Amino acid sequence: MTMQNNLTVQALQWTGDTLRVLDQRQLPEQTIYDEYSDAAGVAKAIATMRVRGAPAIGIAAAYGAALSARRHYGAADWRQRVMDDIELLAQSRPTAVNLFWALDRMKTVLNQQLEQPLAAISACAEKIHADDIAANYAMGELGADIITGARGVMTHCNTGALATGGYGTALGVIRSMYRRNHIKVYAGETRPWLQGMRLTVWELAQESIPVTLVADSAAAWLMKSGAIDWIIVGADRIAANGDTANKIGTYSLAVLAKQHGVKLMVAAPTSTIDWKTSCGDQIEIEQRHQNELLAACYLKEGSVVSAWNPVFDVTPAELISAIVTERGAVLHPSEQSLRILKNESE
Amino acid sequence: MTMQNNLTVQALQWTGDTLRVLDQRQLPEQTIYDEYSDAAGVAKAIATMRVRGAPAIGIAAAYGAALSARRHYGAADWRQRVMDDIELLAQSRPTAVNLFWALDRMKTVLNQQLEQPLAAISACAEKIHADDIAANYAMGELGADIITGARGVMTHCNTGALATGGYGTALGVIRSMYRRNHIKVYAGETRPWLQGMRLTVWELAQESIPVTLVADSAAAWLMKSGAIDWIIVGADRIAANGDTANKIGTYSLAVLAKQHGVKLMVAAPTSTIDWKTSCGDQIEIEQRHQNELLAACYLKEGSVVSAWNPVFDVTPAELISAIVTERGAVLHPSEQSLRILKNESE
Repeated sequence: MTMQNNLTVQALQWTGDTLRVLDQRQLPEQTIYDEYSDAAGVAKAIATMRVRGAPAIGIAAAYGAALSARRHYGAADWRQRVMDDIELLAQSRPTAVNLFWALDRMKTVLNQQLEQPLAAISACAEKIHADDIAANYAMGELGADIITGARGVMTHCNTGALATGGYGTALGVIRSMYRRNHIKVYAGETRPWLQGMRLTVWELAQESIPVTLVADSAAAWLMKSGAIDWIIVGADRIAANGDTANKIGTYSLAVLAKQHGVKLMVAAPTSTIDWKTSCGDQIEIEQRHQNELLAACYLKEGSVVSAWNPVFDVTPAELISAIVTERGAVLHPSEQSLRILKNESE
Repeated sequence: MTMQNNLTVQALQWTGDTLRVLDQRQLPEQTIYDEYSDAAGVAKAIATMRVRGAPAIGIAAAYGAALSARRHYGAADWRQRVMDDIELLAQSRPTAVNLFWALDRMKTVLNQQLEQPLAAISACAEKIHADDIAANYAMGELGADIITGARGVMTHCNTGALATGGYGTALGVIRSMYRRNHIKVYAGETRPWLQGMRLTVWELAQESIPVTLVADSAAAWLMKSGAIDWIIVGADRIAANGDTANKIGTYSLAVLAKQHGVKLMVAAPTSTIDWKTSCGDQIEIEQRHQNELLAACYLKEGSVVSAWNPVFDVTPAELISAIVTERGAVLHPSEQSLRILKNESE
């Protein structure tokens, strides 16, 4: 709780016996926390996208498992009941790797024969949360070291406190940089969900960091004006060679950046690196429903109108100037250079 | 009126004593025509973007001047009153050169000492309209000749019947091409006004031409997939060297196209060429209000949140494969090559 309490923006607040979840669907108009005291509630909060962002989803699910343990402890089959709830939580969203990773850590503690299992289970969830914040602070400082001298930066989607345990990945780098030097910050609105307009801009405003929103399609023109030195983005998955899957539009920014002499930084925890995926071609890209782009009147039977709505794209490593993780930064990422971030166990 | 009556989609309908303007802000949900009987009304229709698209703005303004003549004819100072109205119409939007071009033609007729000035003034507006439709048909065929063999094309914004007197410029090329060969058509949604989603896709659906909408930020990823051979766009103003001002996002597409081996066509009537502007740097770019991008809650006094909202950007001639006009097409446009499109009188 200690590190977390210093943060202005908190997607998740753990009270010890409930989890308070900021309903991000209501932002920026309303700041409403929903309070959950059981795993089913947390699973619903994830499934309905009150909370989003891979790290934040993982942390919420861990707290959901902790709530389950508190509820069922004492019953003869309490461990089985918690395992059932963990299964429920695992089914809340299909893609986020962090969700399964966090629940696996909770299962491990659950299945240890400890004297005070409840305290250990809660402590595990709290540690997952605290570790994520600490990793974000580390990335923020490392990233800010690299972009020293930048006068303007742009980010895409939301990679801030709302998407993580707190502080953020790419937005954490921007926070750290802004503390050192009042750089100009631009945010792309990020169609179709407008995470930039609804979340990133809101988050920065909470901390009085001035930010200028631009339409995604205006980024090239902004780059041409010379206003931006770096583009800083997060990652949904990084292949072993540095190819990076991230929110649709990242690849576009990367190609445009290269053409304008603007550098591109990817900031993400090492848990985002998928060592088993050798390159970006192997990353499957999720397609979302066309109603995210099309008005309802186009979606009638027999309509000649359709939409192509990939959620992510893949930016080749050669377009990335730096990958920043909590374990260190790699400039000019490649299969070889990225290996220094790998733990023995991975 | 004759050519116009064959068109499925009509942005402007001239009744002889009123101008009916399709309120494009209501599309695709509702098809509502507003009827104007004076220049002030037409100026408002332009300023409020009920009608948009450089050629359509020019035509609407011409009819606005005709309405003014009808209203003021008979007064001792009627010509001065019409000149005042023409000034009002000229101030409705800053960038589209067609607006000034059309009003200059109207001024010329207005200042001639004719026996039946009212009829001549109306006839001039009708001719501007009819000429635009004829020009679009010519461009459509010329453009389709150039992209023969293309399997997929993408367009940006709306350059169709809704943006012109009828048929369209870039979308006219796509219409002509589709009649010859069922190419795959992609439309970018075109933030912040979503002309692609609201207008282009709607227009094509009226004629049963299948179309796939993509988020602007997904265009690069689509190009990478190999689905597109040509990007075909219109123009708001073309400088004498071929630099082209068009809807924000066009420059982005042009840079991305070059990187992906995709060609870029600009289709626009010669009235869009501003021979007095030697290059793109001299084109004034209209900035629109930040409320087009930002939620109202960000727009309070003292807010640290702002938006950068240029309506247009400028694509350098070297990124343009072909400029297609009603007088002919120029490949690899430059100051020299473009000159063949110039009339003695210009």
